[in-house]
Amino acid sequence: MIAVLRLGHRVDRDKRITTHVALVARAFGAEKIFITTKDVKIEKTLASICSRFGSDFRVESGVSPSSILNHWEGSVVHLTMYGTQLSTALSQLNTHDNTLVIVGAEKVPRYIYERADFNIAVGNQPHSEVAALALFLDRFTQGQWENHSFHGQVEIIPTERGKKVITHDTEC
Amino acid sequence: MIAVLRLGHRVDRDKRITTHVALVARAFGAEKIFITTKDVKIEKTLASICSRFGSDFRVESGVSPSSILNHWEGSVVHLTMYGTQLSTALSQLNTHDNTLVIVGAEKVPRYIYERADFNIAVGNQPHSEVAALALFLDRFTQGQWENHSFHGQVEIIPTERGKKVITHDTEC
Repeated sequence: MIAVLRLGHRVDRDKRITTHVALVARAFGAEKIFITTKDVKIEKTLASICSRFGSDFRVESGVSPSSILNHWEGSVVHLTMYGTQLSTALSQLNTHDNTLVIVGAEKVPRYIYERADFNIAVGNQPHSEVAALALFLDRFTQGQWENHSFHGQVEIIPTERGKKVITHDTEC
Repeated sequence: MIAVLRLGHRVDRDKRITTHVALVARAFGAEKIFITTKDVKIEKTLASICSRFGSDFRVESGVSPSSILNHWEGSVVHLTMYGTQLSTALSQLNTHDNTLVIVGAEKVPRYIYERADFNIAVGNQPHSEVAALALFLDRFTQGQWENHSFHGQVEIIPTERGKKVITHDTEC
C-alpha cells in the first residue's frame, strides 16, 4: 500500500495546497494520507469526494510524524528538490513494498532527510509538492491511474466537448 | 513554444495555487503563462525565481482570455476532468505546434470547451490543476524536463542526503 505523509501543514496558509495534495494522493494510487496538523475541514472535503466519486481513501490529521515514521513497516520516500533524480531513484525502489511518501510544506527538518530511505527530486527546480507527488505516483505505479476504476456514485465519461456525467443509483 | 493560460484566478483565494501552476509551467517546459487577473505579486515571485534559478519564463497577468485566444496561432488544449483520456488525446497532438494549455480555477465558461482544439482529462477524477498541468507537460514533452538545464545562478546538485547547492558567480 502507498500512503502519503504531509508535513508542516499550516491550516490557514496551506489549506488549498494540502487539499490538492490529498486529492492527488487519492487519484494517483495512494490509500491514505497522514497530515501532521489537525484539519477537520480537509477530512470532510475528502470524505465528501469519496462518497461521491468512490474509493475508501482515508485522511488522518493531527498525527505525530515521528510516531508514523517509527511504526511504518516499509520504504520511506521523501520528495525534495535536493534529492536524487527521479529516473535514477526509481530503479532502486521496490514497488511491492509498503511505501510512505513524504511531502513537506514549510522547511523540512533535517531528520527527515536522514530517516528517509530515498530522498527523491522530481526535477531540481522549485515548483510544487502537488506536481511532485503526482509525477512520483505516476511513475511509481506505472501510470495505473489512467485505467483505475473508483466505482463511485458519480462517474465522468471522457468526452471531446462538454460534460458527460453518470450518477449511479445506490441503495442507502 | 508552449504557453499556459490560467483562467479565473482570484487574487486572494488562488494566490498559492496559481503560483504553483506558474512554477510548474516553468519547470516542465512552458515559456510563458498568461493569468487573467492582474497579480503583481505572482509576477514578482516568478521573476525572482528566474533570476536565481535561470530561464526567461515570462508571466503576463491581467490579460483578456478572449484576446489571447483570438490571437493565438497554434493548438489550444484545455485540461479538464471531463475531457478525453490523456493517452488517447496525446496521439492526436502535434508536439511541434505552438500549444496553449488552458487550466481553470473557478468554473470554466462553456465557450472554452468549444474553442479548445482538445479538451483533455488527466484522469476523470477531481484532483488538481497543478498536477494535471505537470502530467500533461511531462507527457507532451516526453519527459524532457528531467535533463533540461536552466543555467541559473543557483544550481541544485542531486544528492542522496541533505542539500548540495552551487551558486555561480555572475557579473552584473
